[in-house]
Amino acid sequence: MNPVELIRRKRNGENLSRSELEEFIGGYVKGSLPDYQMTAFLMAVFFKGMSTEETRTFTEVMLNSGQVIDLSSLSGVKVDKHSTGGVGDKVSLILAPMVAACGVRVPMISGRGLGHTGGTLDKLESIPGFRTNLSIDEYKKIVRELSVVLIGQTEQIAPADRKMYALRDVTATVESIPLIAGSIMSKKLAEGIDALVLDIKTGNGAFMRSQENSLALGTTLVELGNQMGKKTVGFITDMNQPLGTKIGNWLEVVESVECLKGKRIPDLMEVTYVLGGAMVWLGGRAESIQQGMKLCQDAIWSGKAYERFLQLVARQGGDTQLLENLERYPEPAHYIDVTSPLDGYVAEFDTFGIGVLATELGAGRLKVDDVIDPKAGIQLRKKVGDAVTKGESIATLSTDKNEVVQNAAKRFLACVSVKANAPALLPAIYKYIDDKGQHSWSSPALY
Amino acid sequence: MNPVELIRRKRNGENLSRSELEEFIGGYVKGSLPDYQMTAFLMAVFFKGMSTEETRTFTEVMLNSGQVIDLSSLSGVKVDKHSTGGVGDKVSLILAPMVAACGVRVPMISGRGLGHTGGTLDKLESIPGFRTNLSIDEYKKIVRELSVVLIGQTEQIAPADRKMYALRDVTATVESIPLIAGSIMSKKLAEGIDALVLDIKTGNGAFMRSQENSLALGTTLVELGNQMGKKTVGFITDMNQPLGTKIGNWLEVVESVECLKGKRIPDLMEVTYVLGGAMVWLGGRAESIQQGMKLCQDAIWSGKAYERFLQLVARQGGDTQLLENLERYPEPAHYIDVTSPLDGYVAEFDTFGIGVLATELGAGRLKVDDVIDPKAGIQLRKKVGDAVTKGESIATLSTDKNEVVQNAAKRFLACVSVKANAPALLPAIYKYIDDKGQHSWSSPALY
Repeated sequence: MNPVELIRRKRNGENLSRSELEEFIGGYVKGSLPDYQMTAFLMAVFFKGMSTEETRTFTEVMLNSGQVIDLSSLSGVKVDKHSTGGVGDKVSLILAPMVAACGVRVPMISGRGLGHTGGTLDKLESIPGFRTNLSIDEYKKIVRELSVVLIGQTEQIAPADRKMYALRDVTATVESIPLIAGSIMSKKLAEGIDALVLDIKTGNGAFMRSQENSLALGTTLVELGNQMGKKTVGFITDMNQPLGTKIGNWLEVVESVECLKGKRIPDLMEVTYVLGGAMVWLGGRAESIQQGMKLCQDAIWSGKAYERFLQLVARQGGDTQLLENLERYPEPAHYIDVTSPLDGYVAEFDTFGIGVLATELGAGRLKVDDVIDPKAGIQLRKKVGDAVTKGESIATLSTDKNEVVQNAAKRFLACVSVKANAPALLPAIYKYIDDKGQHSWSSPALY
Repeated sequence: MNPVELIRRKRNGENLSRSELEEFIGGYVKGSLPDYQMTAFLMAVFFKGMSTEETRTFTEVMLNSGQVIDLSSLSGVKVDKHSTGGVGDKVSLILAPMVAACGVRVPMISGRGLGHTGGTLDKLESIPGFRTNLSIDEYKKIVRELSVVLIGQTEQIAPADRKMYALRDVTATVESIPLIAGSIMSKKLAEGIDALVLDIKTGNGAFMRSQENSLALGTTLVELGNQMGKKTVGFITDMNQPLGTKIGNWLEVVESVECLKGKRIPDLMEVTYVLGGAMVWLGGRAESIQQGMKLCQDAIWSGKAYERFLQLVARQGGDTQLLENLERYPEPAHYIDVTSPLDGYVAEFDTFGIGVLATELGAGRLKVDDVIDPKAGIQLRKKVGDAVTKGESIATLSTDKNEVVQNAAKRFLACVSVKANAPALLPAIYKYIDDKGQHSWSSPALY
């Protein structure tokens, strides 16, 4: 292989063959192909894209750069969910035990916070004792016992993606549909699943802000999953405001526990029920997504979902006593109340800005080796469309960092727009995508 | 500076400011900015280009990354020529002493062979003893004494370009007009010249194959030179066949000596006289390019150009006895005669393929640290348009390499097309470019 010739051909818009991608990416994983040649390739893909077939080959090469877990010895359909990432997105914590309680196996490998978004692993680790770095043997064992497991990516899973992801982050080559698709799907397909539900976020707190780009990404991901033999569907969901009311690792565990116990947070639970309903349907336990949603609601209202969550936390080493007594968790050094400067309605959030602020309060990492403060975060008192009076609380910020206290309220207010007239409400879900294409979506009424 | 943000902005087609380019490129020269981030920038420039102003700023930043030689203490206009590179292009060897003999100072810093093309330095070093790695002090001294000097790029000249050029070569980011322009002009403007004549090759042996791209590059280069205060003109010249009849380092010295002594090789001497005429005109020794060409021809026919060449070779340590007795040079181990398989006319050469073949015979480097065989190369017996009979010699190949002997003739024949009908002759020069734009060109008849 001549790597320069291969980069040149990609740069000129040609498709590379499987053996070429294998040699190029394989060389990179081994260390014989330098970072700068991989960067040239990534930027060429950014500009010239990949054909459907090349994207699939690329994904397969990344998938096969590491171990592909075999769960075929386990009965039933194994289904996972993946979200492209947003602010306040704690859906996995509620959904995984809920779907498992419906009799579908959910083997889930999650990630950490990235940029302005939180990560499921960081949220779980805010539960004292919770272990996410399990071996693949433990992973299999827990899925067998509880039908659900929540772990982090191991060294063995898609090592090509691990290395390329880090490089993309520092070379401005993140926002490319084939690169995003390859990265997501190579990791997910290594889990040993049979089916996958995708949550593609769209809006000012998502990585893909426009609906057009989100739909293009969603379509690519759904096609790719189905082509690679996994039943895959997706939903385009709203990220023009944080999902639910709490942002920050322990705060999101608290909101998840509340919802698992039956609290109705409309946008959060609509997304959770729809994604869960699709998983239950793909898992063969319901005739339709709508029927799957009903089963999910039954699992919540019967207490079975919460029970499964407690079993899972206990099995992965977490302190369930604390979950049963949420008020015993340590308090942050500072609570900062943010009040409305005028009467009106919350018209808009800068969701990206809120995500960045939460990170700076301590809920995320500014640098790779930063330590997360699980107590830090933001509790929204109002969502888009809510009426607010002058001086009324819009949000409460939590932090241990003295240096951010002074400007935090002002920074939050800069991310909210309060207007005299009530705005149009934001839908939670915009579109449904399956192997036949895009469809409009309207959720059935919740109980 | 956030380098990722800067790459992202360039990737999105924005122009970067002087201070941004200074920090980015400066960081790269110092080693604080890694190769992969520079690669991402280079590939983004490849796709999104640079505005005229940004190209100029970029060139100035590269120029100022190193020493800018000051020749203002020397009387007269200092003029140089630069070629974008081709096969058999030995013009500098004839032109530099010829123009100096006309009373114009020619301080020339040249390069080595690159890819399928030869380099002036490698050709000069085939003369035993010839030293090209002179200090800047020696460089100035020789220009003062002889009005001409031929050296290689020193460490002090445009170090940013040296480092970036090596990276471009291995990341498929060579063929970008702003990057080529910045690279050429930063080196040339560091020489201390007042004026510059550009030879932009076009055709199947050039880096820019299409006339459209060659014209775009030429226009950018001429504009850039004039904007930066140097009188600059350019010619688009043919590279659809090797220039002259000899390819290979010593062989090209031989052809240069022959031409300096008055031999008429039509395409080679037309290009040499036109470029030289423009230099003499820019140097203030003629009223027009045409009159400059006449003075150049006088310098050849009077023997003054050849005399100046011998003085230069002697001054830079070369063996002039050998130049006076060309037949004493060592012979290659193998001469391979290539004969025509049929009666007809030479219709076309694959000039790139011939350049690659010459390299493989030993005339160039396949890897950076390869040693060049000065005797290796190709002598053309026929040029495009020449009649040839079956079994008649088209070319003679010279090499010491036993392993290439068997296939060499076949490889050469694959680069020649002999057809029944006489083809249209190739012009030597297509266009003239000055600060007013592109013009058609027709050379006055030679003596």
